[in-house]
Amino acid sequence: MSKLEDIVSLCKRRGFIFPGSDVYGGMAGTWDFGPLGTMLKKNLMDAWWNYFVEKRDDIYGVDAAIIMNPKTWVASGHVATFADPLVECKECKSRFRADKIADGISESVTTDEFIATHTKCPVCGKENWGPIRKFNMMFSTHVGAVLPEDTQDNPELAAKNVAYLRPETAQGIFTNYKNVIDTIYPSLPFGLAQQGKAFRNEISPRDFILRDRECSQMEIEYFVAPATWEENFEKMRAAQHDFLENIIGLNPNHIHELEVSAADRAHYSKRTIDFMFDYPNGEEELMGLAYRTDFDLTNIERESGKSMAYRDKITGETFIPHVIEPSIGVERIFLAVLSTAYTEDEVDGSARIVLKLPSNLAPYKFCVSPLLKNKPELVAKARAVYDQLRQKYTFVTWDDSGNIGKRYRKQDEIGTPKCIVIDFDTLTDDTVTVRDRDTAEQVRIKIADL
Amino acid sequence: MSKLEDIVSLCKRRGFIFPGSDVYGGMAGTWDFGPLGTMLKKNLMDAWWNYFVEKRDDIYGVDAAIIMNPKTWVASGHVATFADPLVECKECKSRFRADKIADGISESVTTDEFIATHTKCPVCGKENWGPIRKFNMMFSTHVGAVLPEDTQDNPELAAKNVAYLRPETAQGIFTNYKNVIDTIYPSLPFGLAQQGKAFRNEISPRDFILRDRECSQMEIEYFVAPATWEENFEKMRAAQHDFLENIIGLNPNHIHELEVSAADRAHYSKRTIDFMFDYPNGEEELMGLAYRTDFDLTNIERESGKSMAYRDKITGETFIPHVIEPSIGVERIFLAVLSTAYTEDEVDGSARIVLKLPSNLAPYKFCVSPLLKNKPELVAKARAVYDQLRQKYTFVTWDDSGNIGKRYRKQDEIGTPKCIVIDFDTLTDDTVTVRDRDTAEQVRIKIADL
Repeated sequence: MSKLEDIVSLCKRRGFIFPGSDVYGGMAGTWDFGPLGTMLKKNLMDAWWNYFVEKRDDIYGVDAAIIMNPKTWVASGHVATFADPLVECKECKSRFRADKIADGISESVTTDEFIATHTKCPVCGKENWGPIRKFNMMFSTHVGAVLPEDTQDNPELAAKNVAYLRPETAQGIFTNYKNVIDTIYPSLPFGLAQQGKAFRNEISPRDFILRDRECSQMEIEYFVAPATWEENFEKMRAAQHDFLENIIGLNPNHIHELEVSAADRAHYSKRTIDFMFDYPNGEEELMGLAYRTDFDLTNIERESGKSMAYRDKITGETFIPHVIEPSIGVERIFLAVLSTAYTEDEVDGSARIVLKLPSNLAPYKFCVSPLLKNKPELVAKARAVYDQLRQKYTFVTWDDSGNIGKRYRKQDEIGTPKCIVIDFDTLTDDTVTVRDRDTAEQVRIKIADL
Repeated sequence: MSKLEDIVSLCKRRGFIFPGSDVYGGMAGTWDFGPLGTMLKKNLMDAWWNYFVEKRDDIYGVDAAIIMNPKTWVASGHVATFADPLVECKECKSRFRADKIADGISESVTTDEFIATHTKCPVCGKENWGPIRKFNMMFSTHVGAVLPEDTQDNPELAAKNVAYLRPETAQGIFTNYKNVIDTIYPSLPFGLAQQGKAFRNEISPRDFILRDRECSQMEIEYFVAPATWEENFEKMRAAQHDFLENIIGLNPNHIHELEVSAADRAHYSKRTIDFMFDYPNGEEELMGLAYRTDFDLTNIERESGKSMAYRDKITGETFIPHVIEPSIGVERIFLAVLSTAYTEDEVDGSARIVLKLPSNLAPYKFCVSPLLKNKPELVAKARAVYDQLRQKYTFVTWDDSGNIGKRYRKQDEIGTPKCIVIDFDTLTDDTVTVRDRDTAEQVRIKIADL
């Protein structure tokens, strides 16, 4: 098995991540977080929120609806251009993203280019392609009291009621910019941060949780005076590294900045750095940092007819702020954290799997365990220690399954930094064994000093 | 203005809640949380998660995808029955939920009953009704590489790719039950909790955030041995009261249990208590507590062909667990908290609005402020106090806008329990004024004792 397969297997075996709707045979491109994964994901998202919102004076949170007025996606350009090139094999009807099965050609591929670079269907091996069509990746739905039978012969009615699941959280921030400056009067530079779901109808979901149809995003739109964009870009860039390396513990050697060339950048961006990460299956995007100029606010101003100008409190100068945007997919940093933590090594001559998670991210920080589960006096003492710790901390777990060796293996696999074991000595001297996850070393500590 | 209108106004004025997509004229039935509302909502959701998941040994979290395999909603009955009766005035084309504009008749209304109890269109006053039709409230979308032009003349293809936005978080829990018992082996009774978005295409969204098209839910499915359902129901009922009254501070006198009669209960429920709350506009559902028997797991077993049996670790007995479900809409308790906190009173002879939020829910716990903003020595000293507090706490805000009276009013309106003011005495004796939000009383405290 590849390392990625090992991680997928661990995730399912230990309740981190299950395939979405697994009981019904799944739902392509969706994943469900189990008990352990929910804890790790929450720890990651809370760490980001704490670092970028709670601990800073200049970034505020917003929490916008997923279903937005469809004008949002006209203004942002998503209705017109958020599309992948779709091609169908006319023999077996399989559908592919043309630029992904063709070699070395870009997203705006033509049928001729496609056939020139890839003439055989990967499924049936035949060569009979339909035309390349633009496939918009936004999920659409209909809002309001309209039945399917009403719209069947009435495309205007259907179009009037169409709405989209947001393909990014960013626009939920931009559309609230005006209300925020009119209510809490922040001074530039300031940021608005949002965490929440985003949806993309990927033609071919793949790579575990890296390319899924539903993901959680964490985005900041940081509004700055136009002349200051470069210094703010640099500050935000440094803050991203600090978060990734010092808060969630990614190895700096596995993070590579990719300066996106003018030709490859989105047309509105004057500078973009993709933070790439060495995932088990190769280098892939971890997050992005983009200077979006005044592209979004200007679009909103045009589409809404409302001024997006900011008035400087001291100089009185009026202008549309420019924007620096750090954008993170939660699943991408989740997998980066797991890849970093996942280790196979040997303890006392036997192989083990251990998740060396930073302790701020580990679902449980401590596991309390009686050495033997069939000795009531040990179990009672261990329970007392557990209850005492639980009164102070929420991140303590109890384990009396199997034998102590199996428990260590299990706690290693779920990344619990310390196992506290109550044995017969505990009953006489009130000391416990504390075993370290990473070194497997054990030390004896007074219960009072825990 | 009614009290509800006052609250809506405060929410917009102070950045708690804005109409969804406000800049584009809104999106009916959606709401965006601004900076203050995002903090309050997060505090509420974290308080629930802490109380029911982190502090308990028997409840675990899950975090499932919003887009689920459509079999989910066949099994749960939502495809067949999650519908409201829709009626159209054939004169002005206005559409209504028939049971809401007709008097005293139930959801399963017929056209005859409807005309008998309400013969005039509330919009145009005419009497020319179309038939009552069942309007399914699930939002549908299409998943996978299928273009609208592919499905236009091919309803089978459209049907094959249809999926729904979950109308409740509950089914995302039930579908993960099997993977959870196969991975973390919990013993009965145990619960699975989920927080997340749910979507309902309400015919007429109304009552501010009470009846919206997109909401956040917090649900627990608590799995029990069938014979123990009554005792577990009572324990869960007590826990709900404890949470509502002691953790988020709702007035017990405003909470009324409504024992739902057998005739009004969902067909699968053997007991349901609606927790009603005295909202400003009258009594409305705050949350629900239902005994759902083995209805959901049995449906999943039938639809998936997989056993949902639980095997007792001691007796070896095998059975399908029964379920107790407390279900909370976040927006409903959000509004209950705001309604409880919203107060108009007088301070020093002048009227004010104050949000008497419990301090664990208040967005900010402290505000630090210099008495005068044009005295650099006061501002510097206040900044020092602020920085000192911020090193320890994240929930401290800074305010030097307007004069001190205006700042008090503002902090009162956003529910900040204590205002710390730095004045000229501070410079000589290192004491500050601490003003209490609710009493407006001021005491003098050493900075070191803050």
